[in-house]
Amino acid sequence: MSVRLGIDIGGTWIDAAAVEVTSSTHRVLAQRAVRTTSGPEGVLAGLRSAYELVRAELGDVPVDGVGIGVPGIVTGGSVTHAVNLGIGGRPLDLAAAARELTSAPVLVENDVKAAAWGASRWLGSASGAGQDLALLNVGTGLAAGLVLDGVLRRGSRGLAGEIGHLVIDRTGPPCPCGKRGCLELYASGGGLARRWTGSAGELMAAAELGDTLAQTVRDDLVVGLAQAVRILVQATDVAEVVLAGGVVTSTPALQAALLAALRDHGDSGFERMLAVHERVRWLPEDYPAGSVGAALLSQVGSAPGDLVDTAPA
Amino acid sequence: MSVRLGIDIGGTWIDAAAVEVTSSTHRVLAQRAVRTTSGPEGVLAGLRSAYELVRAELGDVPVDGVGIGVPGIVTGGSVTHAVNLGIGGRPLDLAAAARELTSAPVLVENDVKAAAWGASRWLGSASGAGQDLALLNVGTGLAAGLVLDGVLRRGSRGLAGEIGHLVIDRTGPPCPCGKRGCLELYASGGGLARRWTGSAGELMAAAELGDTLAQTVRDDLVVGLAQAVRILVQATDVAEVVLAGGVVTSTPALQAALLAALRDHGDSGFERMLAVHERVRWLPEDYPAGSVGAALLSQVGSAPGDLVDTAPA
Repeated sequence: MSVRLGIDIGGTWIDAAAVEVTSSTHRVLAQRAVRTTSGPEGVLAGLRSAYELVRAELGDVPVDGVGIGVPGIVTGGSVTHAVNLGIGGRPLDLAAAARELTSAPVLVENDVKAAAWGASRWLGSASGAGQDLALLNVGTGLAAGLVLDGVLRRGSRGLAGEIGHLVIDRTGPPCPCGKRGCLELYASGGGLARRWTGSAGELMAAAELGDTLAQTVRDDLVVGLAQAVRILVQATDVAEVVLAGGVVTSTPALQAALLAALRDHGDSGFERMLAVHERVRWLPEDYPAGSVGAALLSQVGSAPGDLVDTAPA
Repeated sequence: MSVRLGIDIGGTWIDAAAVEVTSSTHRVLAQRAVRTTSGPEGVLAGLRSAYELVRAELGDVPVDGVGIGVPGIVTGGSVTHAVNLGIGGRPLDLAAAARELTSAPVLVENDVKAAAWGASRWLGSASGAGQDLALLNVGTGLAAGLVLDGVLRRGSRGLAGEIGHLVIDRTGPPCPCGKRGCLELYASGGGLARRWTGSAGELMAAAELGDTLAQTVRDDLVVGLAQAVRILVQATDVAEVVLAGGVVTSTPALQAALLAALRDHGDSGFERMLAVHERVRWLPEDYPAGSVGAALLSQVGSAPGDLVDTAPA
């Protein structure tokens, strides 16, 4: 048994969790969150606060590792290009900051990859599954994390699963990235907020009542999400695709529409074998995959070659 | 050192190669090809002929394994849904047929996955690279094979890399699969043949001279190929994408257009890190990746868990 801390740095909240890990299970002992302040200094201060709050809850229990999940590109223990945190091209060394707080080993990973690992452990404890999945995170942006045959896939440059800026309509609107018609313009919380003032549930209801703007935005959202799921399945043949992010996990009407769109692809032998809609799962809204995944990754590492899970589900 | 036979069953030719494998290299000892006859009986007869021709060239050298690559869905030693071979939903047991020819171990794998393994060995012997790649096969159809961190990725249902029937234009022409606007309608040899009578080289030349049909077909081909490469890179972050198939490997003007399309995606930090165009390689036209890959796979196996390469490059 060991106790590990995971800290998930998001654009709005920094979530911290203390996780007790045995040889076959994990259990959240404590959870705390603090508001994110943008910019390097704000992020570092938030990291310290979240760590200290959840550490204090543990009392004198020793901590065996600390994992940090952060949006952006992670190299070594540093992050760059975390636009939602106000961190640009200059690396912010989160590992060094965490080492000032603890003598336990520290691991820093991209937040969606950490959440994929958390989702893998969640499915694994629930059903013996979870060894082969994509976590599709529908947040401010759109990105996926992959666990393939039980191993977290970082990719050759740490960019595996970064499908949000695939162009799906070259005549579409401009994207902040400089291209046009990127997938995440249609299929993300941020993309939705630019086109519709209200929740995804209100969008679905308005579309159902005949609002033509709502219908257009809804159709683009459903088609975009379906395309994201299909790209992940057809490129990698992952056994499961776990959707995360309040836009989908708190909107049953959107879930139903997405499943219908995935099913509605003809009846060829190939489509029957592919059975994309059968692979879809919804991450429970209250499961903190990001912080739990970061905590559990601190146990197994995430560099190629050292990801040996010592706590099989 | 061992000698292995690989047989690549294609829609037009069945290629057989005898490969000598040492602990660090491989060398093609003999190669033969016979014309494919469609249908189960024709395919089995061709398999036997190709095997016997290349076996005869070897004289009394013992063979340590036989690998067979075949388009379609491979389960156990059987293939289904090999449309180009006239094989439908009823399994054709190629392993059993091969066991009548040899007492050596037999392995059957999807042809593009076998070719990906061959491409991995080709790059590995050339440069120490090749451990992490997608082979994008631009043939009658469009499909990819993945080697991730040195391991062939079959996927949960053996369908990894089957990106040809991703819909990229829902208002596009009907596809034989029953959907509309599938990627392979635009970006494959078969798709090209339906729209243009002539080679890809002639297409590029006619487009350059101002033929508007040729320009449309060329632009769709280039955009489709670029999208296929990007989907593979952004979903999996493979270090290299190896393009195979005469349509691209024998058409320098098309290669130049594809690289330009991959480069022409703005100058964001993300695009610079992604550097998709830097990952592109062209399989040499005379390298028999399919039969060599099948031969080499017979050494390492391709089921999850048993793919342990005993001949590191």
